[in-house]
Amino acid sequence: MPPARRLQGVRSSPVRDLLALTLRPEVISFAGGLPAPELFDVDGWADSFAKATDDRRNLQYGPTEGDPLLRTQLAARMTSRGVPTTESDVLVTTGSQQALTLVATTLLEPGDVVAVEEPTYLAALQCFQIAGARVVPVASDDHGMVPAALAEVLERDHPTLVYVVPTFANPTGRTQPPERRKEIVDLAASHNTWLVEDDPYGELRYEGAPVPPLVSYGDRVLYLGSLSKIGAPGLRLGWLRAPADLMPATVIAKQATDLHTSTIDQAAAAIYLSNTDLDAHVATLRAAYRERRDTMLRALPATVPAGTIWTTPEGGMFVWLRLPGNPDTADLLREALTHNVAFVPGAPFFATTPDHATFRMSFTTNPPDDITEGMRRLARTFDPTP
Amino acid sequence: MPPARRLQGVRSSPVRDLLALTLRPEVISFAGGLPAPELFDVDGWADSFAKATDDRRNLQYGPTEGDPLLRTQLAARMTSRGVPTTESDVLVTTGSQQALTLVATTLLEPGDVVAVEEPTYLAALQCFQIAGARVVPVASDDHGMVPAALAEVLERDHPTLVYVVPTFANPTGRTQPPERRKEIVDLAASHNTWLVEDDPYGELRYEGAPVPPLVSYGDRVLYLGSLSKIGAPGLRLGWLRAPADLMPATVIAKQATDLHTSTIDQAAAAIYLSNTDLDAHVATLRAAYRERRDTMLRALPATVPAGTIWTTPEGGMFVWLRLPGNPDTADLLREALTHNVAFVPGAPFFATTPDHATFRMSFTTNPPDDITEGMRRLARTFDPTP
Repeated sequence: MPPARRLQGVRSSPVRDLLALTLRPEVISFAGGLPAPELFDVDGWADSFAKATDDRRNLQYGPTEGDPLLRTQLAARMTSRGVPTTESDVLVTTGSQQALTLVATTLLEPGDVVAVEEPTYLAALQCFQIAGARVVPVASDDHGMVPAALAEVLERDHPTLVYVVPTFANPTGRTQPPERRKEIVDLAASHNTWLVEDDPYGELRYEGAPVPPLVSYGDRVLYLGSLSKIGAPGLRLGWLRAPADLMPATVIAKQATDLHTSTIDQAAAAIYLSNTDLDAHVATLRAAYRERRDTMLRALPATVPAGTIWTTPEGGMFVWLRLPGNPDTADLLREALTHNVAFVPGAPFFATTPDHATFRMSFTTNPPDDITEGMRRLARTFDPTP
Repeated sequence: MPPARRLQGVRSSPVRDLLALTLRPEVISFAGGLPAPELFDVDGWADSFAKATDDRRNLQYGPTEGDPLLRTQLAARMTSRGVPTTESDVLVTTGSQQALTLVATTLLEPGDVVAVEEPTYLAALQCFQIAGARVVPVASDDHGMVPAALAEVLERDHPTLVYVVPTFANPTGRTQPPERRKEIVDLAASHNTWLVEDDPYGELRYEGAPVPPLVSYGDRVLYLGSLSKIGAPGLRLGWLRAPADLMPATVIAKQATDLHTSTIDQAAAAIYLSNTDLDAHVATLRAAYRERRDTMLRALPATVPAGTIWTTPEGGMFVWLRLPGNPDTADLLREALTHNVAFVPGAPFFATTPDHATFRMSFTTNPPDDITEGMRRLARTFDPTP
């Protein structure tokens, strides 16, 4: 008997499949959305794990909802960002990817409709496909999801939930302005639809004024948070902030999924958040990543063919580009790898009709000198004449 | 919009709901299936985490399939137990509970049939219910699932998979003898059905000869392993050994679920398995748990009412009991808690018609003196006359 039918239709993430190719040390990779490893606070984490392993209770099973101290700290962090939150609003998850899976398990029946920006985070698309949902795209412009387009989809397709990455989106880097956020939250509420706000990058702003998260505009929003980009992704720590009436069902889903998230990782994170000035660390990340973004953006005009268009993200990790004409960036990636440089072809980020001339570039993983060298190699990919 | 319909039918695990009540320090709990915390190798784990945090790569994202070194070590451990296994057969999971969820995601469509022993592990029941499967019970006797009963279910209900805990089962403590294992594997194969072997307790044998796992009898078996009972459950580390043709689909399911399991926990476990004689540690656990099992079994006749029947497990964590008549053990648990002792009522372990007079007792969590005192309190629960 073969695997379930819906699994057969789900493609493996090319981002992850590519990791194998881009792991060769000679490749400068702009492909994966990886934080810069040299900026990890290794000493802080080592110290936190040393303290956490000192208490044998941190090797034991723990509560499904998560470590009480960590939940309190995550709630306090959301409150300080303008979203009043208590411990009981927060479920600790094994990365925010798991929060998304739990939302799908909790809210979706097979055949239900999910509305998404197009393009959008491809592992979200996989997650909804595995849940058996029908994914309907909503048009986006330079400011993210277009409210009029969302209104049309809400009327026509009656989605159970609307999935958005409103701040420094993956893959486009785009951010919804405040007025648009309010419109989208109101639209979803008036159609009795859940909004799922995926916010792994929100704290990584390099210019412009902070924009409040969608969840601060209404109470029908499920918020997915992550320590992967501001702490360390290897711990797989994220959280779901859900409306109170959904929390019991999400806890049951979490229990059936993995009982609970690693006790020791949660304890280490709680100790880390107590002992570290995370805001100061985030400020360090912002300064470093701003320089990397600027390095990439400055190099782009001399790198890509005339007529290429790209986004200028105010934060996050990604620049999204479209080449002129209709080349297939998957072919260009093969060529790029011969020059020991890599990016992600854009097609898999589309729920429906892919634009094969698009691709995504991450600017956070490599230091500025490597970005400069990688852009030189990319220029040779696009213009092979010497 | 309420949570999805199938979530509404899934009960929260009373084992976990009870944890709140049994956490009061004055309660001696035989409820949760917790390993003894005082037997954790705290120094070994602290040392392993210290080494793991020394390498910043262990704070980064990792491959979906798992840490290559850990996969190799888990494969070697299975090979040494008579099941030839290579790294590529093994997917590291966030506890073996997640392996079960991935199996459900990979193999089940809503409406598919899953055959289980009755009673069986209740979080497995939750997992199958959430997948939208119809759970069909197969009669069990003192040696686990009855082959003739399985044959009937295979003919009548055409299950997509058969779920078994063949060794020291949860909740019954029962073990299938070798000849029955062969019969069950052959039956499943001849009906083109997958067998899912959940084996978290297999290494915890206190008497009798080891029995080969189901997976050693045929190639249509998915094997779920766990470090929770022989290492530490707080790390949430388990694995799935799946047939090669299923592995790509399970990896996609894993990717959509949480991208990968904690890099740092996997690295610490790989270091731990390299530096520690795990077999020697398991021998220590066996000796300690054997004494605890014997302490509980010796005290039972003077504790429970005449006419009570119970299992005598050769290993694992659990004794399964049935009181005479038709009392409801949920009521008795409330009474027991007033005496500061706890067990788990048996009803939730049944997929269909519960036997309310059953209950489960774990003998691993408490040292012998506490078991003796707990059994005294339990005796007062069952016979309140002084």
